[in-house]
Amino acid sequence: MTDHELDVDTASRATAPGTREGEVTDRWNTPNGTPNGGYLLALALRGLAEEVDAPHPLVAAMTYLRPARPGPVTLEQSVLRAGRRVSTARSTTLQDGQAVTHLVASFGDRDADVGPDVELGSPPDLPPPAECRDPGLAALAGPNGPMTIADRADYRLASPPGWAQGTPTGDPTQEYWVRLSDGRPVDRLALAFLVDAWPPAVADLGHLAAVTVQLTVHLHREPTTAWVACRVTTRHVVGGYHEEDMEIWDEAGRLCAQSRQLALMV
Amino acid sequence: MTDHELDVDTASRATAPGTREGEVTDRWNTPNGTPNGGYLLALALRGLAEEVDAPHPLVAAMTYLRPARPGPVTLEQSVLRAGRRVSTARSTTLQDGQAVTHLVASFGDRDADVGPDVELGSPPDLPPPAECRDPGLAALAGPNGPMTIADRADYRLASPPGWAQGTPTGDPTQEYWVRLSDGRPVDRLALAFLVDAWPPAVADLGHLAAVTVQLTVHLHREPTTAWVACRVTTRHVVGGYHEEDMEIWDEAGRLCAQSRQLALMV
Repeated sequence: MTDHELDVDTASRATAPGTREGEVTDRWNTPNGTPNGGYLLALALRGLAEEVDAPHPLVAAMTYLRPARPGPVTLEQSVLRAGRRVSTARSTTLQDGQAVTHLVASFGDRDADVGPDVELGSPPDLPPPAECRDPGLAALAGPNGPMTIADRADYRLASPPGWAQGTPTGDPTQEYWVRLSDGRPVDRLALAFLVDAWPPAVADLGHLAAVTVQLTVHLHREPTTAWVACRVTTRHVVGGYHEEDMEIWDEAGRLCAQSRQLALMV
Repeated sequence: MTDHELDVDTASRATAPGTREGEVTDRWNTPNGTPNGGYLLALALRGLAEEVDAPHPLVAAMTYLRPARPGPVTLEQSVLRAGRRVSTARSTTLQDGQAVTHLVASFGDRDADVGPDVELGSPPDLPPPAECRDPGLAALAGPNGPMTIADRADYRLASPPGWAQGTPTGDPTQEYWVRLSDGRPVDRLALAFLVDAWPPAVADLGHLAAVTVQLTVHLHREPTTAWVACRVTTRHVVGGYHEEDMEIWDEAGRLCAQSRQLALMV
């Protein structure tokens, strides 16, 4: 790995069989003052990737058990099956002996697997990044301290979100470009971060805050371009619980990742 | 529970702290000759529900590690967090000491949680069940023995699927009604079964077989009606890997469950 921010801040080292030690930094904080969920996913997923003998994460399913905070973490990992084609392992991230997240991820070799491509979706309909605007997310920082995650990624939108102007549109869908601010290429690890690195889509329903209960991401391709195009949407809210679906496409118009989370408006 | 088929065949009994014993029956076999994935999910989810002090499963995330077969199973369960609002536990289903599935599920009380409802989707556009046709799935049984699952659920379609007539439509989307054949009401346990109880949507791309790597289901409401309306679709196939999304609505037009699986064409 490199000295790029995402690589430095997701590093962990094996200290015993099935145990790794790492550090959640304060560089990925949301307006809640707590570390971003996509960052916590990337940290745990990278730890598992070092245990599993397969090059690519295929799917990662994370449950958020308690709010994390900047500081040391212990990863307790175990392999559930090392298969010929697919290997699966699980990991619990602990702080002060308490489980904060739980991850199950399956790995394989997408370059060795052969099968058809069929694309019935379409990438976000956005002008090129250079013609889009920076939405200025850093200004969202609230009383809980700086929104440091706004310094980790650059966002570009065709027009400012309704909720950011105090006029939620009623349509909880947002399309935008994003890249990592320090120039790190967006690989599968970065995709795992980026699927949960935008304010909740339900902000355009007038609900600025939601907590993630569970998030599953399918990781399909490594983007070939610096910017990736995201589409995030919520279609169903039931008693405050709702899905949030994210697609990430590269500039060549290829789907790279697809995620869904169950979140709860708070 | 009752003597309905789903209740009898998902029963397990605690034999030690964190350990339950159950039996996978041969009444839910697919044309592959192996037990259906939705049935395996329901069995594991019910076992966890008996360990967790909360009335409703909110989300269940299952990884399929190896093919199961009819016969005894051991469920190894542990609670990851018993929270005020959400509790999460995990379970491994073993046969002959080998892990066949792994489940993480979160539970809560949907009746106590209050929050808004917003519906931007729409239920399947189907004639009433009485005006639809039985697609005759039992005729799909192949050389691997009877497709017993076809006797557990009744299906009704507006018109026969293209793939079933040897003419895949090229659009991997299907809408249909389903109910349990023995009259058991469709509750959340049955929804967990039904989200994976239809042939792969990619059959209409000409691929009749797919294996599920991972499935996550959001369980929102208990249906108020006997029949439920399903919409299953695949939009993205990358090297044979693809999502399959399922929505289940009741006859009153309310979304009850939403699932996504990562599957691999074989």
